[in-house]
Amino acid sequence: MKVDKNDRLILLTNDDGLYAEGLNTLIEVMQEFGKVVVISTTESRSGMSQALTVKMPIRVKLLQETDTKRVYACSGTPTDGVKIAVNQLLERKPDWVVSGINHGSNASVSVIYSGTMAAAIEGCLYGIDSVGFSLNDYSAKADFSSSKKYVREIMKNLEKNKLPGGVCLNVNIPSCKSSEIKGIMVCRQARGNWREEFEKRKDPMGKTYYWLTGIFQNHEPDSTDTDEWALSNKHVSVVPVSVDMTAHSFIDDLRKQINNG
Amino acid sequence: MKVDKNDRLILLTNDDGLYAEGLNTLIEVMQEFGKVVVISTTESRSGMSQALTVKMPIRVKLLQETDTKRVYACSGTPTDGVKIAVNQLLERKPDWVVSGINHGSNASVSVIYSGTMAAAIEGCLYGIDSVGFSLNDYSAKADFSSSKKYVREIMKNLEKNKLPGGVCLNVNIPSCKSSEIKGIMVCRQARGNWREEFEKRKDPMGKTYYWLTGIFQNHEPDSTDTDEWALSNKHVSVVPVSVDMTAHSFIDDLRKQINNG
Repeated sequence: MKVDKNDRLILLTNDDGLYAEGLNTLIEVMQEFGKVVVISTTESRSGMSQALTVKMPIRVKLLQETDTKRVYACSGTPTDGVKIAVNQLLERKPDWVVSGINHGSNASVSVIYSGTMAAAIEGCLYGIDSVGFSLNDYSAKADFSSSKKYVREIMKNLEKNKLPGGVCLNVNIPSCKSSEIKGIMVCRQARGNWREEFEKRKDPMGKTYYWLTGIFQNHEPDSTDTDEWALSNKHVSVVPVSVDMTAHSFIDDLRKQINNG
Repeated sequence: MKVDKNDRLILLTNDDGLYAEGLNTLIEVMQEFGKVVVISTTESRSGMSQALTVKMPIRVKLLQETDTKRVYACSGTPTDGVKIAVNQLLERKPDWVVSGINHGSNASVSVIYSGTMAAAIEGCLYGIDSVGFSLNDYSAKADFSSSKKYVREIMKNLEKNKLPGGVCLNVNIPSCKSSEIKGIMVCRQARGNWREEFEKRKDPMGKTYYWLTGIFQNHEPDSTDTDEWALSNKHVSVVPVSVDMTAHSFIDDLRKQINNG
């Protein structure tokens, strides 16, 4: 693949691995927008958040190359993959980092645990317009056909309007027929958390171990301006995500507390 | 250890492992405030961010118990440790989750990669007042003696003033003599990123592998209200961290873009 000055160079990744249907859907659509470089693991690495590989070396293998696409396997996390692509593998800084399409929602607080969104946040930290896409269906056989239209729509908006510095997009697509989707809704991250239900088991040696499972709890089911509401009501949710995690509105109060302490 | 209704129950963790000097300093100081339960790995697990262990079972082992302290080893990430402690190990929801003292700064964007801060964020998601402490010295032999005073000061403020919902604290302590520290400064997360410098090597079989290394770049070295400025100028920085990552100020503009598209 030759990358010219006029080519749009797009870095694609995910956390479900190179063989995931969601990534293949994304590759198909994004080739309409430019030349794509794909980097991911061969196996899935869900729930990795912004984890970095610091105690192990990272391996990269070029798996495939055509005139419009290059595919690398990387042993690291999604964040590692973006870092090593931008610094070692790409001919220049990419124009976009696009991650997904994740098998499963990354709405509400899942943005914090998600490897898909971590890759988008990593791109954003490099000053690259970045988007993470997720479909609200965890199954390996999820149907991504209705997602394509909305991936196109979001990326066409990005062609016209660059994102502000320090902001990337968290896009979640409802799992239903294309005809049932009511459109795109720009919204905020719903307040919620995961209520864990660890499953306690005994191994064949009689020792205890735990499996992490959980159920998401929406703390504000009646708010109509959240990503959770949008998804439940068959809208595509788009949340602008800030890499600045400062709770700015609490700074003054905290300053008074500390100074009067 | 018996936990009475009137006891303050404090969950402690870190990402440098149970034998780290920073955690031992924290255990020492926090026992002045209540009964402590410690959960961490035996080895360090830096850079794990909010990673979860979903493809492997989690093991937990009670290592030590006295009248005022209980210590568990956990095979998972710092986030796993908080989850399993709150859900399986503690007699009730703890009053505080306190993480650290990390060997190395977690100021600026390091908050996003940090396992120390992930544990505090996890506590916050459970509605528990949570703080992550870090010392700006990566060495295993870092001197934590000057940190104690500031851990006490921050926690005494928390005794008097609960944190708002969805907000935890990221406290970074400069690495210098106690007499040189100028005090506590409430500030915001500095804009910056890590510039990677992957080290490319050949293994004995002649195959390439990479080590991730990097240098932090402060994008706003002249701003005097950031955590990076505070640390460089020998102040203890305190940033209130929000689990809501929505870029609220961009919602209206993005809505206009999408609706006009």
